[in-house]
Amino acid sequence: MKRRDFIRKAGATLATGAAAVGVPGMAQAKAEFNWKMVTAWPKNFPGLGTGANLLAKTITEMSGGRIKVKVYGARELVPAFEVYDTVSSGTAEMGHSGAYYWKGKSEAAQFFSAVPFGLTAQEMNAWLYYGGGLALWRELYQPFGIIPVPAGNSGVQMAGWFNKQINTVDDLKGLKMRIPGLGGEVLRRAGGITVNMPGGELFTSLQSGALDATEWVGPYNDLAFGFYKVAKYYYYPGWHEPGSTMEALINEKAFNALPKDLQQIVLTACKAANMDMLSEYSARNNQALETLVNKHKVNVLPLPDEVLKTLKQLSEQVVKALADKDPKSRKIYASISGFREQVMKWDAISEQAFMRARSL
Amino acid sequence: MKRRDFIRKAGATLATGAAAVGVPGMAQAKAEFNWKMVTAWPKNFPGLGTGANLLAKTITEMSGGRIKVKVYGARELVPAFEVYDTVSSGTAEMGHSGAYYWKGKSEAAQFFSAVPFGLTAQEMNAWLYYGGGLALWRELYQPFGIIPVPAGNSGVQMAGWFNKQINTVDDLKGLKMRIPGLGGEVLRRAGGITVNMPGGELFTSLQSGALDATEWVGPYNDLAFGFYKVAKYYYYPGWHEPGSTMEALINEKAFNALPKDLQQIVLTACKAANMDMLSEYSARNNQALETLVNKHKVNVLPLPDEVLKTLKQLSEQVVKALADKDPKSRKIYASISGFREQVMKWDAISEQAFMRARSL
Repeated sequence: MKRRDFIRKAGATLATGAAAVGVPGMAQAKAEFNWKMVTAWPKNFPGLGTGANLLAKTITEMSGGRIKVKVYGARELVPAFEVYDTVSSGTAEMGHSGAYYWKGKSEAAQFFSAVPFGLTAQEMNAWLYYGGGLALWRELYQPFGIIPVPAGNSGVQMAGWFNKQINTVDDLKGLKMRIPGLGGEVLRRAGGITVNMPGGELFTSLQSGALDATEWVGPYNDLAFGFYKVAKYYYYPGWHEPGSTMEALINEKAFNALPKDLQQIVLTACKAANMDMLSEYSARNNQALETLVNKHKVNVLPLPDEVLKTLKQLSEQVVKALADKDPKSRKIYASISGFREQVMKWDAISEQAFMRARSL
Repeated sequence: MKRRDFIRKAGATLATGAAAVGVPGMAQAKAEFNWKMVTAWPKNFPGLGTGANLLAKTITEMSGGRIKVKVYGARELVPAFEVYDTVSSGTAEMGHSGAYYWKGKSEAAQFFSAVPFGLTAQEMNAWLYYGGGLALWRELYQPFGIIPVPAGNSGVQMAGWFNKQINTVDDLKGLKMRIPGLGGEVLRRAGGITVNMPGGELFTSLQSGALDATEWVGPYNDLAFGFYKVAKYYYYPGWHEPGSTMEALINEKAFNALPKDLQQIVLTACKAANMDMLSEYSARNNQALETLVNKHKVNVLPLPDEVLKTLKQLSEQVVKALADKDPKSRKIYASISGFREQVMKWDAISEQAFMRARSL
């Protein structure tokens, strides 16, 4: 799911009007810092928007109201695609979004959200916190006066909703699919036709046949959207977004103006938000999947191995091409791909081997 | 790895003497609350002990020194197995340990650390934060005046170090293995002989043949221990501990005496510590695995499917027997096993399917 979709969807379906984060019993506390948090999500969008709300609330509560953080949904203060500039200029002290939205600023930003056939949520966090990833990310945003902090994760997404079955690579040829970013580039290389379209139009486009397929997020968000009413097949796994990291953006000057305890509060709240959102998605996706399968009789299907193999090869080309764009991208690619190679070996004998053993 | 091992190891190999958590520039801050954190780990034990240190440091930093948390390794203030009582009585305001150590208090405590063939770290967190698990855990510890909070995870552990190959279930018969807790009960049902032995004696016992096998944690901790020098085979996956949760224990009265902002600081620091420890283990396990395989030429082997299937059946019996011990256990079992059933279906098409696709 990408920026543009949220913009329309926000306007179309959700009430506007920013509300201060309510903290009971803190009405009297004198705020030393009044912060705005602009987000790339519609206000209260389940998982992402509610995750941003929780982050703001946690900061305000931990600081005893010394920092008041007011959350703005997309288009409440600025459109989603202006979140980065708004934080960079200091008009808002904070933002909440996904790094792949900022490839116009730095191509390499895409490495910090989701890479096709890249890292899962747990691996991404290991790389960011303990594998050198976060330092590289800070280096990348530093020229813009922004400190990036991991602050959420959707976990593995779904490959999407399809109106035709995908049995061979040939079935991707001419497929009209809404799939943005690096995943879209991979589909184009496989012969598909990617269509850019706001989220609000996806439903009717699938219904009319203007679209053959669309990816969105996962069962929790997809169920709410009602895609099961207009698409026949729900494919897995989400090869294009295996663990999408959400970011908090912090204006560097605003951060430096905070006393040390409040700095630590902001950073720790982000780390807790990162844990929280992933847990929420894991729990709610499994409930929603059950509803989709048992109540709505959705056809949940795996992409065939042959198709996955091809998509994987093309993904490697696309990611390599991204790495070759500039020296920063090359450096980040070297770090993340080295980490990926190592962690895949560990996962093969831990997470992966355990989950296999459990289902024997 | 269990309590007793830490006790000896702490005494044998690590310097004692508790040190206050150092917070630069905070020497002058007046502490309103001086808290002790007693832990079940040797001081500074990598991953677990350092995780407890980080938790204490984060609380102290976020509070601007208003809460000073002083960390005690096992046997510095009290032995590891007295952590629970020490927090319950209020002698220490806080503890850091694993819930399986407290089955003497409530059998059901074991559900909140690690269950053979149970939940992975990510699933465990989803259950605790968003699946009703944490509420049940609080209910269980409430009579002891303790608030439990998830505060770390080791991820999937390894099955252990073996001096003989395991090719069939018969190879488990008569196997002298150090494996405590529910996993040990499973091995006994499979015909093995479980041996209780402090961590400090494992190395020589494997060398002398007094032990045929031992489990410990995973590559990061196991490499440091040097098991590769005395055991031939390193088996996976850690069916007995697929995502061991570490707990912070908080004395209820001490918690209630805190103002709301400091309460929120303590809880959020635990959530961040939970994210942090898992990330550290993921990153360091993969590095350590590489060293074990490439430098020390360790034989890393999978337990055969037939053996895993048997262990799984026996695990179900053992966990069911635990559930039947009392009404609280039954209630918790119903919740965790219902969640497990659902989340396994979701993981099959997300984490598991993605990792499989990536390795095609």
